[in-house]
Amino acid sequence: MAGDKTYIDISRAKCEQRDRLIRNEWKISKKLALGNNVLEVPKTCGILTDREITITEDNDAVDIVDKIRQQEYTAEEVTVAFCKRAAVAQQLTNCLTEIFFEEAIERARQLDQERAADPSAPWKPLHGLPISLKDSFKIPGFDSTIGMTYFANKPATEYSALPKLLLDLGAVLYCKTNVPQTMMTADSDNNVFGRTLNPSNLKLTAGGSSGGEGALVAMRGSVLGIGTDIAGSIRIPSICNGIYGARPSSGIVPFDGQQSPEDPGMVGIEVVAGPMATSSRACSFFMKTIMSAQAWRYDSSCLHLRWQGQQPSRKPRIGLVLDDGVYTPFPPVRRAIREAAQKLRDAGVDIVELRLPHVADAVGITYGMFALDGCQFVQDLMKEGKEPQVESVKRVNLAAIPKSSMQGYMDLTAGRRKLQAVYHNFWLDNQLDAIMLPGAPQTATRFDEWGPINYTMLWNFLDYPATIIPTGRVRESDVADGEDSALYGEQDLRNYKLYDSPETYKDAPLSVQIVGMRQEDEALAGVVGLVDSILNQS
Amino acid sequence: MAGDKTYIDISRAKCEQRDRLIRNEWKISKKLALGNNVLEVPKTCGILTDREITITEDNDAVDIVDKIRQQEYTAEEVTVAFCKRAAVAQQLTNCLTEIFFEEAIERARQLDQERAADPSAPWKPLHGLPISLKDSFKIPGFDSTIGMTYFANKPATEYSALPKLLLDLGAVLYCKTNVPQTMMTADSDNNVFGRTLNPSNLKLTAGGSSGGEGALVAMRGSVLGIGTDIAGSIRIPSICNGIYGARPSSGIVPFDGQQSPEDPGMVGIEVVAGPMATSSRACSFFMKTIMSAQAWRYDSSCLHLRWQGQQPSRKPRIGLVLDDGVYTPFPPVRRAIREAAQKLRDAGVDIVELRLPHVADAVGITYGMFALDGCQFVQDLMKEGKEPQVESVKRVNLAAIPKSSMQGYMDLTAGRRKLQAVYHNFWLDNQLDAIMLPGAPQTATRFDEWGPINYTMLWNFLDYPATIIPTGRVRESDVADGEDSALYGEQDLRNYKLYDSPETYKDAPLSVQIVGMRQEDEALAGVVGLVDSILNQS
Repeated sequence: MAGDKTYIDISRAKCEQRDRLIRNEWKISKKLALGNNVLEVPKTCGILTDREITITEDNDAVDIVDKIRQQEYTAEEVTVAFCKRAAVAQQLTNCLTEIFFEEAIERARQLDQERAADPSAPWKPLHGLPISLKDSFKIPGFDSTIGMTYFANKPATEYSALPKLLLDLGAVLYCKTNVPQTMMTADSDNNVFGRTLNPSNLKLTAGGSSGGEGALVAMRGSVLGIGTDIAGSIRIPSICNGIYGARPSSGIVPFDGQQSPEDPGMVGIEVVAGPMATSSRACSFFMKTIMSAQAWRYDSSCLHLRWQGQQPSRKPRIGLVLDDGVYTPFPPVRRAIREAAQKLRDAGVDIVELRLPHVADAVGITYGMFALDGCQFVQDLMKEGKEPQVESVKRVNLAAIPKSSMQGYMDLTAGRRKLQAVYHNFWLDNQLDAIMLPGAPQTATRFDEWGPINYTMLWNFLDYPATIIPTGRVRESDVADGEDSALYGEQDLRNYKLYDSPETYKDAPLSVQIVGMRQEDEALAGVVGLVDSILNQS
Repeated sequence: MAGDKTYIDISRAKCEQRDRLIRNEWKISKKLALGNNVLEVPKTCGILTDREITITEDNDAVDIVDKIRQQEYTAEEVTVAFCKRAAVAQQLTNCLTEIFFEEAIERARQLDQERAADPSAPWKPLHGLPISLKDSFKIPGFDSTIGMTYFANKPATEYSALPKLLLDLGAVLYCKTNVPQTMMTADSDNNVFGRTLNPSNLKLTAGGSSGGEGALVAMRGSVLGIGTDIAGSIRIPSICNGIYGARPSSGIVPFDGQQSPEDPGMVGIEVVAGPMATSSRACSFFMKTIMSAQAWRYDSSCLHLRWQGQQPSRKPRIGLVLDDGVYTPFPPVRRAIREAAQKLRDAGVDIVELRLPHVADAVGITYGMFALDGCQFVQDLMKEGKEPQVESVKRVNLAAIPKSSMQGYMDLTAGRRKLQAVYHNFWLDNQLDAIMLPGAPQTATRFDEWGPINYTMLWNFLDYPATIIPTGRVRESDVADGEDSALYGEQDLRNYKLYDSPETYKDAPLSVQIVGMRQEDEALAGVVGLVDSILNQS
């Protein structure tokens, strides 16, 4: 409830409060000349020491954990370095919501002291690793507004399940990151904190709903962040920002106790938490750590799946999907997937080109399942918060979405089960280890133009794990071609025409999506590691 | 659709067809004098040879598999022995629906021949083991009537997932077993095949819905049968017949492709398949075999949980629950649970007495979830089948059950999630390895009197695995005590008064139920093995 204050008052107070939590000496000079691509600013702005630049740029999450163990770094200096870099990222991209740098530095100091006091104690798996979190995770004493006035100034009293587990595993939590109003669109813009910008090109969207996380990790203000994904909300910002992001199978990573825009009894498509990182091995490390930690103790809905320590296949069989038969990828996206396939073939990977069955049916059922309550719950929240809809939410047209009946939901469920069986057999019949396809037909778009989400959402519908691997950026040679290239009708053409020139999309990251079989997240991690090494280290 | 024939015509034809599939020399003399307890008749009726009596009586499923491997038995002679004994059981208890003895014997002969032709081939895990199946599993060429005229004379064209897997693992399938009309009650009576009787006491119910399986296994016409359980349908007939029966966590044993009385999009409480057997180790062996066989390849909805080969705890901590706070157990059931607890204490097991939280709430939500479509689907099937309701179905009063709205279902789901979390923490806070409680407040009752199912259904609601261990039988000393013993009100008293004397319940089996944590089926198997060894081998 907004009380007497308007949403504008609330927003102003929240943003000022947030800004005060950044030390003055970490503030960027207003005189600094910025281009559209701000990825190098942390290195050049003079706020980080050389050592802090090294800590934040030359290490992924696995390196950080290793080097703290080897006493090359202290937890405290690592935390300070990432807090500073996150502060810089915030000032450039507006990626943060809640800041708890000082508490994090204090915790890191304590971890160092505990270590010094008992050097023979076993290392906790995440000892000293700073991890950033999407705003929906609750930390006592801090808001989880999820971009909605309604939730402002209602600090949490308990931890969500995952941050509690991460702390028990030795991690350091230092900030939360921005999301779209409602978390139901792919543009991280809201009336509380405003819009997160894309550090590769400030004129493009950072994606969403884990958009703040995407921008922060791209800036290396974090080497491991946690997003959530029900239709692509980890993968879309990973695509937009050129980072690694994995949507795990549901029920593996504790999800319980988050702020939600949905009815607590919501059913249908499973929403999951997962890693966003600067390397594929950091994503795998996160999954391995969670799956080795009896994570289900923290969340009664978690499955009791364990990391097995399987030997990954050296010659996987990968199904190559060039498009979904509904939306034509932008020219640079087509280039990215073709180049990736060629590199894999050259490296001896077994590639088989496939068409995905029944995509439109799957997408139809998925949208039906998102709207079981006619999105009434979230509309009520906005009404109570007395705030207008942001542009990307307006475009969804929530008020026009019909409710489902009980029989309607059972019909959707029957349809989903049928298609899950079709894909299961498709996978087994083709003897696949993975599928490679674009993560979206588009790159990061201009604000509020992010369109089709079939390419990510299909795997939520099927509950298959899927990881984004960045592979490059839009080049000048990625010219916009004729409308004839859009193969699948009017809707396709509308999206395709958004790609008007490589200049508009300058520096927009490119990527591929690698999909595994349901609950074979460990096997997928093996394939992703191999594919990443071929695409990015050769 | 019943066509021109009445349900009585259909039933007569089905039963005659079934009887013709029993060889004449396997038919029991009509002159044989029978008491109410027919458990010994297979040994005394003169149909089985001494060797066949030994094969069927002195071995559990694990022994059978071992002895075929050691060439002590052939698959063929084992199959013949169990077919004969199942034929005898059928004539005494009416436990079978579809019979395929001749096909089974032919398959067993082929398995023997394949073995002889290639003695160095690796053994399939279930090579030569006869397994009986609840009627709901589909076998090409045979009906799955599930006790409903509507489904009669519509032979299956494909295997259900589990029988397909079992055949691939080397098992021999030889018969299917009787169920209640609709499979929604605990009395295995229907208009197609009639009522299954309890071989311990022909005047008592065999339970349900896997009642035919319960009677068959009690007669040792099968040492391993497969039932299904959504509220107790494996455990109730296990209790009634004095056999072992395990309700696994959902998603482990393939369930797909069965005949169902429910909408294909039905949601809510998960129905599962699981073992019913003559020993606890046969149940564990079944679970280990399934969880080591990538069973998910056969059913896209299966979880990818693997058997770990854990070392079971030698000194487990077991929560003792004497009653559920809603229904008072019959005097012999109280004796059984107290005696079991004392034996475990004497053996050094750590027993902690507990009260279960929120049982009535959990039961209320469960009943709500069973009736999401107002049980309309099954009523339509009966209408199309032009058959009347049997007595136990009448008592359910299907027509009076209201439908749920979508919001109603989400509210039930929210309530379920909350209680699942409460029990999760209850389990962890008490550091439990298992809970021991009665499987029901009653023993096998007179026909159509089976009452409260809280004691089994609670674990379906929570999706916890639960196993019935038989511990003895009603004794003359189990006198009916005063009404004051019924502690929980009128409804409780009504059920409690059914226990009028030990004579009525003569030879009724007693048992305990051991419950594990969700998806810790392997750990539960360890505890069950230990508890069983203390209760039954000392």
